[in-house]
Amino acid sequence: MLYEKLKQIKSPEHEVIEVARKRVDQLIKPQGSLGKLEEIAIKLSGITGESMPVLDRHAIIVMCADHGVCDEGIASAPQVVTLLQTLNISKRITGVGALADPLKTKIYTVDIGVNAEIEDPAIFSRKVMMGTGNISRGPAMTRNDAIKAIEVGIEMAELAIKEGAKVLGTGEMGIGNTTPSTAILSILTGASPYEITGVGANYPVEKLNYKASVIERALMINAPNMDDPLDILSKIGGLDIAGMAGVMIGGAANRIPVVVDGFISTISALVACALDENVKPYLFASHASHEKGAKLASKTLGLEPFLNLEMRLGEGSGAALAFNILEAACRMNTDMITFEESGIGVV
Amino acid sequence: MLYEKLKQIKSPEHEVIEVARKRVDQLIKPQGSLGKLEEIAIKLSGITGESMPVLDRHAIIVMCADHGVCDEGIASAPQVVTLLQTLNISKRITGVGALADPLKTKIYTVDIGVNAEIEDPAIFSRKVMMGTGNISRGPAMTRNDAIKAIEVGIEMAELAIKEGAKVLGTGEMGIGNTTPSTAILSILTGASPYEITGVGANYPVEKLNYKASVIERALMINAPNMDDPLDILSKIGGLDIAGMAGVMIGGAANRIPVVVDGFISTISALVACALDENVKPYLFASHASHEKGAKLASKTLGLEPFLNLEMRLGEGSGAALAFNILEAACRMNTDMITFEESGIGVV
Repeated sequence: MLYEKLKQIKSPEHEVIEVARKRVDQLIKPQGSLGKLEEIAIKLSGITGESMPVLDRHAIIVMCADHGVCDEGIASAPQVVTLLQTLNISKRITGVGALADPLKTKIYTVDIGVNAEIEDPAIFSRKVMMGTGNISRGPAMTRNDAIKAIEVGIEMAELAIKEGAKVLGTGEMGIGNTTPSTAILSILTGASPYEITGVGANYPVEKLNYKASVIERALMINAPNMDDPLDILSKIGGLDIAGMAGVMIGGAANRIPVVVDGFISTISALVACALDENVKPYLFASHASHEKGAKLASKTLGLEPFLNLEMRLGEGSGAALAFNILEAACRMNTDMITFEESGIGVV
Repeated sequence: MLYEKLKQIKSPEHEVIEVARKRVDQLIKPQGSLGKLEEIAIKLSGITGESMPVLDRHAIIVMCADHGVCDEGIASAPQVVTLLQTLNISKRITGVGALADPLKTKIYTVDIGVNAEIEDPAIFSRKVMMGTGNISRGPAMTRNDAIKAIEVGIEMAELAIKEGAKVLGTGEMGIGNTTPSTAILSILTGASPYEITGVGANYPVEKLNYKASVIERALMINAPNMDDPLDILSKIGGLDIAGMAGVMIGGAANRIPVVVDGFISTISALVACALDENVKPYLFASHASHEKGAKLASKTLGLEPFLNLEMRLGEGSGAALAFNILEAACRMNTDMITFEESGIGVV
């Protein structure tokens, strides 16, 4: 199914892009004066195949999973917080829920691998396994489970789209997940774990060298093939990371834009684009995460975030704030008149 | 009336700030992980005097005025565009209208000095005069007219607040208004016009030295007193600039936050804060304008914009996008539970 979906992904429609660019240049404003909003609007036309798309319904898919590497003491919060916050996210009483509320954004909370039985009608039960293995001692999961987790993401993306979403955002909850994310960033860029390991959810700065050493060990023991994204995901990745990559693939296959949240999401984007570079034109960066490796991750992905709020919460909280920008870019095209329509003549 | 209002401005409430800070630190997230949203929420508590303010109703006040210095050929658009766009802004078919629509933000279009008779029930008729004088040949207006224009801003702010606005944004329309703005920036910072003059609404780059020479002439002929903001405003300012400064003073006097839009608005903020430094705690920067002098203006004001969209349209378009961020910051405080409420215990 994954390979089928990858095959479905087409390049954005260049003819529609040209139509949109022409209209944007004729809108009643100095050419170029709406900056990146203009680029966003034009890009959205190429993605959707509509010269004037409307993005009034948004959904964030939050992938929740545990990470066996927590056994090494690389997170300040106990692992059970993944379970507790998964329940809270579905009640919209955590960061992403609060930030998603002004725009009434839907939130899909997905148990893709929380290390506990969850039976809650508000949570999508798509557990691939009870959390990953400890990557500093062996692989996170099998190659088959990595594919399964990506396919969960694709399925959830298609469900959200079916239920009306015109744009998707990615989010995650998984205590310890900056560790596999940093490991993936290291293998994809060649940067040393000691240069890019950050504090995640307030891990003590004085223990960062230890956290980096755990990541270094994960890379040595697993020796993932840097040219094989599924090998990377299964050996040093996570179920949340794989699930979000699936959301991006699902969005792209259905010509629906996907807003990438912060550091962990950007790592998922790197994996998704490594699986198929055609995913990238469907992605938007949201905010510049304050996590240490985020800048390198964004640079490697080649998408520049437009929000600068020094956030580092995850959950999809940054994506929640970006929807307003994307929606505004669309409204520029639908609501503004052109110079011709105004009778002013181009100035 | 201006001096009365300035006297009304109090410092933000430090006790409420402490209550808000305590709650923000106890919310169910790693401390500090919502970055500037946390600072915004705490600042809003100090401004409003409420530990959990709600900013669900926003208004942008767009000050429209003409500039006599257009006679020198310092703008690429003909002066009549001020009139035409003033009419269009009130119909919500320009940039600010489009960008304000997703959040249903109210727009108050104010004729504070358009060089034409306007009789349109959708436009607030508060004309101080038919555009300013040509600052490169003499003063823009009298000191008395500058005070009148500021008072129009105060009055409009109080009207919008009376009609329900919990937060205000400033906007302007005035062909040529980067010229007086750059002149004010030059006198306040000592920077040479030749270093800080930008293209505004696509003025040709090869003519920037000429535009800077007009600004230099305005400074030499008028010799404004850099320690007297009303002298600066009346000699080298504009009615739109003065009106927006009034909106900021009106917001501050009524404990209502004001979102500063782009370059011209930031110049207004510099003037308002020069009149009374107590205005500053009530202001929020929105986006980093792409106009050349904007960076220096923001730095001088000391407020860091959180949106980076390379916009340079004005009209209040950047403020329109910032309201979602401020509203989200408030929702963080009202919608998220604390660790204690969640039973997790602080991690």
